[in-house]
Amino acid sequence: SSATSAKLTCDASKVVCRGAGLSKALVGQKNNFTVDCSKAGTNMLMVGVHGPLAPCEEVYVKHMGNKLYNVTYTVKDKGSYTVIVKWGDDNVPGSPYKVAVP
Amino acid sequence: SSATSAKLTCDASKVVCRGAGLSKALVGQKNNFTVDCSKAGTNMLMVGVHGPLAPCEEVYVKHMGNKLYNVTYTVKDKGSYTVIVKWGDDNVPGSPYKVAVP
Repeated sequence: SSATSAKLTCDASKVVCRGAGLSKALVGQKNNFTVDCSKAGTNMLMVGVHGPLAPCEEVYVKHMGNKLYNVTYTVKDKGSYTVIVKWGDDNVPGSPYKVAVP
Repeated sequence: SSATSAKLTCDASKVVCRGAGLSKALVGQKNNFTVDCSKAGTNMLMVGVHGPLAPCEEVYVKHMGNKLYNVTYTVKDKGSYTVIVKWGDDNVPGSPYKVAVP
């Protein structure tokens, strides 16, 4: 049935990420972005953040409902960070993101 | 040099996860486990949690230092959850974990 096919379909290219935290972050502050997976079927959101020297200090992923997520992270070091957002095994559009921490 | 090779080597099979939150979780409580990547080289930790009906409400990953991570998550629904822990692209030993929420 079409209901079954819809359930099995997932498409990382339909995920939309938005927010300042995808391009710039500040030490000692909460850096944010949103991930809208509402058009991308059913899968698991995976988020990773790594700094120039060490892993990101904290990553917090909150499901706001309807597969819209809010991601908050904090960093300790200046430099170039990498933010990876995957929908299941697949990178979403734009991922991996390069984030500058000035 | 051996220092260079060590830096480039990463091995998800050397990651060790421990904690009650890998097998059982409770609604409305903070459920925990640790992920020790100290022997697994350099890579990015990715954690995802999904419930029987909807995504996990909150997932919080805190780097405690030396590639030891503490993961806390909260769930809204009873049923069978899946917890995925990856070191880069590779599942760590035991992942995906099946977690019961009674």
